[in-house]
Amino acid sequence: MSADPTITAFRRSPDRGRGLARDMRVRWALEEVGQPYDVRLVSFFEMKEAQDRARHPFGQIPTFEAGDLVLFESGAIVLEIARRHLGLLPADAEGQSRAIAWMFAAIGTVEAPIVEREQAGYLERDRPWFADRQSLLDARIRGRLGDLSNWLGDAAWLDGPFSAGDLLMVTVLRRLEGTNILEAYPNLATYVARGEARPAYARAFAAQKAVFDASHKEDSHAN
Amino acid sequence: MSADPTITAFRRSPDRGRGLARDMRVRWALEEVGQPYDVRLVSFFEMKEAQDRARHPFGQIPTFEAGDLVLFESGAIVLEIARRHLGLLPADAEGQSRAIAWMFAAIGTVEAPIVEREQAGYLERDRPWFADRQSLLDARIRGRLGDLSNWLGDAAWLDGPFSAGDLLMVTVLRRLEGTNILEAYPNLATYVARGEARPAYARAFAAQKAVFDASHKEDSHAN
Repeated sequence: MSADPTITAFRRSPDRGRGLARDMRVRWALEEVGQPYDVRLVSFFEMKEAQDRARHPFGQIPTFEAGDLVLFESGAIVLEIARRHLGLLPADAEGQSRAIAWMFAAIGTVEAPIVEREQAGYLERDRPWFADRQSLLDARIRGRLGDLSNWLGDAAWLDGPFSAGDLLMVTVLRRLEGTNILEAYPNLATYVARGEARPAYARAFAAQKAVFDASHKEDSHAN
Repeated sequence: MSADPTITAFRRSPDRGRGLARDMRVRWALEEVGQPYDVRLVSFFEMKEAQDRARHPFGQIPTFEAGDLVLFESGAIVLEIARRHLGLLPADAEGQSRAIAWMFAAIGTVEAPIVEREQAGYLERDRPWFADRQSLLDARIRGRLGDLSNWLGDAAWLDGPFSAGDLLMVTVLRRLEGTNILEAYPNLATYVARGEARPAYARAFAAQKAVFDASHKEDSHAN
């Protein structure tokens, strides 16, 4: 049995290998700190089954298992990796606290309206109110991005050196891919590109893309 | 100058003193660990001004200031308090990691659809789609609560002894007050009541209520 941690990820990611599923955050964090890991692929069905519910109370990916520890919630997993290894949190206590604040900001404040927009795309696309609602949601997202853009200014990262806060924020902002919302904030678009240019990001992206390509190949053979 | 930390809270909370604003979480955490604190009351206008933006990039309450550290995001502030004092995180490393996972679950997974429902109440009440949307949102909230209820079972707290994860989850579930959604999950209703019965909760609730009562009295005098 390997001593490396094991994470879960979608066997066939609904994002078609674009690295938007939440395992990407954990892969990226592990690559930043140089920690090898194993991946257990799960189907949507398996994810909701009792065995996986014991790992993740809300039946989602990713989970993180290392020794006796079983964790869920991508933010908590990234923080766990950051606490176990050097490289994702500043060395000083105050810098660490600020980086953790940005982790919560990424997930609680910025991601929430973005996820809401995605949900509307899944659940309300055929409803008569879809276009009007989309405008409301876009305005809320723009409110958050305007604040974030003002804060970032021409800095490279949100609060000093690259941290787990930036890692989460970049993955959150990437969820706007395919919309034209981010383009109105050039410094945020550059910020995302800066994250994507990190070698650890590239390795994580390639790893999740390989999973999708393999599942896609299986599909093609079956057809 | 006081050496106690200073938090920000609404001068006139829109919840009319029901303890649903996010300063309640921070007050409760400080009361649990026995740390006295000062409060700086801000109006909605002041919160959005440049001086407060320097403290909170998204122009919200609460913030937390202690020495040179300025923090925002209620989840991060509660975690900071939990890291500085005994009483809000288990003593063992794995228990701590699990408690932090529940903090992220409270804010990222459970609170998000609840906030969405509140937002719809503010922004979409006069729209023709309001009732239909409300049903969709209620179903999403019920999905999360069903998972949470199954996880909790007949345990007192989510993962061992009371932790910062429970503190956040109780405050998140309290946001459903005034709906009948929580009542369908008796173990969750009891869980919330269990949190509210803690002496530290009662002290925090009284402190925020006193702020509202004072502002209300000012209003009465002005009329």
